[in-house]
Amino acid sequence: MFNAYSPELRQDLRFRWNRLQENLRETGADALLAATNVNLLYLTGRIFMGYVHLPAEGEPLFFVRRPCGLSGANVFELRKPEQIPDLLREAGIALPRHLLLEGDDLTFNEHARLTACFPDARIGNGSTDLRQCRAVKTPYEIRIMRLTGSRHAAAVDRFASVYEPGMTDQAWSIEMFRLMLQAGGLGLFRIAGNSMEGFMGTVLAGDNGGAASPYDFALGGAGLDPSLPVGQSGVTLTEGMSVMVDIAGNFYGYLTDCTRTFAIGRLAPRAVEAHCRSIEIQQAVAAAGVPGARCEDLYALALKMAEDAGFADCFMGLAQKAKFIGHGTGLVINEQPVLGARSKETLQEGMCIALEPKFVIPGTGAVGVEDTFLVTPAGMENLTPCDPSMRVL
Amino acid sequence: MFNAYSPELRQDLRFRWNRLQENLRETGADALLAATNVNLLYLTGRIFMGYVHLPAEGEPLFFVRRPCGLSGANVFELRKPEQIPDLLREAGIALPRHLLLEGDDLTFNEHARLTACFPDARIGNGSTDLRQCRAVKTPYEIRIMRLTGSRHAAAVDRFASVYEPGMTDQAWSIEMFRLMLQAGGLGLFRIAGNSMEGFMGTVLAGDNGGAASPYDFALGGAGLDPSLPVGQSGVTLTEGMSVMVDIAGNFYGYLTDCTRTFAIGRLAPRAVEAHCRSIEIQQAVAAAGVPGARCEDLYALALKMAEDAGFADCFMGLAQKAKFIGHGTGLVINEQPVLGARSKETLQEGMCIALEPKFVIPGTGAVGVEDTFLVTPAGMENLTPCDPSMRVL
Repeated sequence: MFNAYSPELRQDLRFRWNRLQENLRETGADALLAATNVNLLYLTGRIFMGYVHLPAEGEPLFFVRRPCGLSGANVFELRKPEQIPDLLREAGIALPRHLLLEGDDLTFNEHARLTACFPDARIGNGSTDLRQCRAVKTPYEIRIMRLTGSRHAAAVDRFASVYEPGMTDQAWSIEMFRLMLQAGGLGLFRIAGNSMEGFMGTVLAGDNGGAASPYDFALGGAGLDPSLPVGQSGVTLTEGMSVMVDIAGNFYGYLTDCTRTFAIGRLAPRAVEAHCRSIEIQQAVAAAGVPGARCEDLYALALKMAEDAGFADCFMGLAQKAKFIGHGTGLVINEQPVLGARSKETLQEGMCIALEPKFVIPGTGAVGVEDTFLVTPAGMENLTPCDPSMRVL
Repeated sequence: MFNAYSPELRQDLRFRWNRLQENLRETGADALLAATNVNLLYLTGRIFMGYVHLPAEGEPLFFVRRPCGLSGANVFELRKPEQIPDLLREAGIALPRHLLLEGDDLTFNEHARLTACFPDARIGNGSTDLRQCRAVKTPYEIRIMRLTGSRHAAAVDRFASVYEPGMTDQAWSIEMFRLMLQAGGLGLFRIAGNSMEGFMGTVLAGDNGGAASPYDFALGGAGLDPSLPVGQSGVTLTEGMSVMVDIAGNFYGYLTDCTRTFAIGRLAPRAVEAHCRSIEIQQAVAAAGVPGARCEDLYALALKMAEDAGFADCFMGLAQKAKFIGHGTGLVINEQPVLGARSKETLQEGMCIALEPKFVIPGTGAVGVEDTFLVTPAGMENLTPCDPSMRVL
């Protein structure tokens, strides 16, 4: 296998392949062919240009279009995907009759090109299987998520130190982005799917917290330009505004999510109270979030607590409300599952879930917290531990 | 049309639609349905969640899944794409029999879902038409590209001011990223296709300039982590290294490309000479880059000049060489055309082309320049004008 890799990572990759292979056998598929970056990273521990062929039984093969850090048994060079069938035959592997491709990730034309390489195969969607596997972290991934969360939380604890009175949301965000990069952040914010985009995260001040958004984030913000309508809007931070800072942590390719809210001076009492309710709701959901818990029940619990506290109208937005209070995170910020009203999924040990019960208070802004949690038999463990209280600037 | 838009932008959008409609009529298509962010931005001037239906003749319709800045005639709300056929019928528009979808941009499953909405239509690939149109900028786009290039160049001129001896490539890059954001940069680096990724740009110091890359950039660099193998590698900047800084400019959704090279102290004479050759090659290609010039001829001109100067071995990389010396840029960093060995395309007035003849000198690093040019009847006009000489730090 991969010569330069640590024994820990080699073993972990084997664990990932085995789990995905179980999945393939349940689906009745002979093999999966992965070609997009996030899944190549998941299946090999690095980004490269090429393909992974994972049969339902036996060893995966790795087809590499450019030199990369992969070398060892089962790593083959190739120029174009049309060579894959011959390379499989040469390796003594029967061509799949039921092949899974990444239907949610490949473009239509990439998918068509790979499909044409296997004219006798029935093609299914492997993105679903990959996302299911990716949702439950392996031991190595849990170690990396812990490390990421810990480095992320340490950076968040320093955000207030780079605030200066009179700043705009944008000016402060630049200083916080710099802190994240100085702390070792890679900056890249990976999101599955075509529709959502973002830079490193959002800093929502005042009524920008409730701005309608074309993106499916919990709260989006209007952004600085119609070409990227998300995040800070350029407003000057003034007395009475809340500022919600939601910047992702990415230190090793895995993302943690952590939001903290800051007060510019004294806020309206209702905003201060809503922030406390957010912390309580997050704690309650985390305590209830044991393996087997149903995602829709956790959403319902959060919604009920918001309603009982008299904050239903401003929970998860105002005119436009997010229909979820949490989501998986990992190689992309929107891993499965979603904690939403009709999420039939259940939590599993090893899932990493961002919990973000947030409120938007008209005239003040967005308040609340978000942390990334690991699902354990004892409930959820916070991977981004830092002071959740609303810091007054 | 769009109520809140300036007359200039309204007129420009109409110009884009008309040109694309000519294209559709040549293709024999009845309509194009666009659904991905960059093309929505191109066709409406903003990102939103929804669809644009552009018939070969007549007015486009805009289907909006979430409230956004679009309102006016022909803007309709919808919940899901399956409503589009009924909405077209209600608007008195015949369903297309030959419909173009974004085959290079939609995922396979998104494409399948839209295809199923039009069971009687033949489906073709509209990505090609959209990319052809996007390659030739409209008057508004040229104004924005000029503004972007000018703001970009002004920021590049300040890069040396945030350098400090003893820095790593990463530490310096963070300060330059901050300058770009402080100058109004949006940060987002949009790339067409699934395979390439990057943060704001690359800072390649010493031999990292020649590192093999899985991405199809001119020069990539090894990066800080296998999950993002591009750009700075964490090396400390020391005497005798060249540092190539290639950070994209994005102030209004349009990208300009500009690379400058810096010397840490005194460089090997061969590196200094290669940098001068890069400037000469860029100038020669820019002078030859009139409308009608063939892209492969411009590539051949650059290659010949590099060969004649005795630098063929290190032109565009060492072991791994980029096979192009320039590329279109605009809403994405990799617009058409490519100036490569087998590029049959010809330049057209209004194209915006990044020219980047670069060299990698073993033991020193990458040297050379890159600028974004507008194709005019008099040759190419530099949109990112700033001192091209190698600044000694």
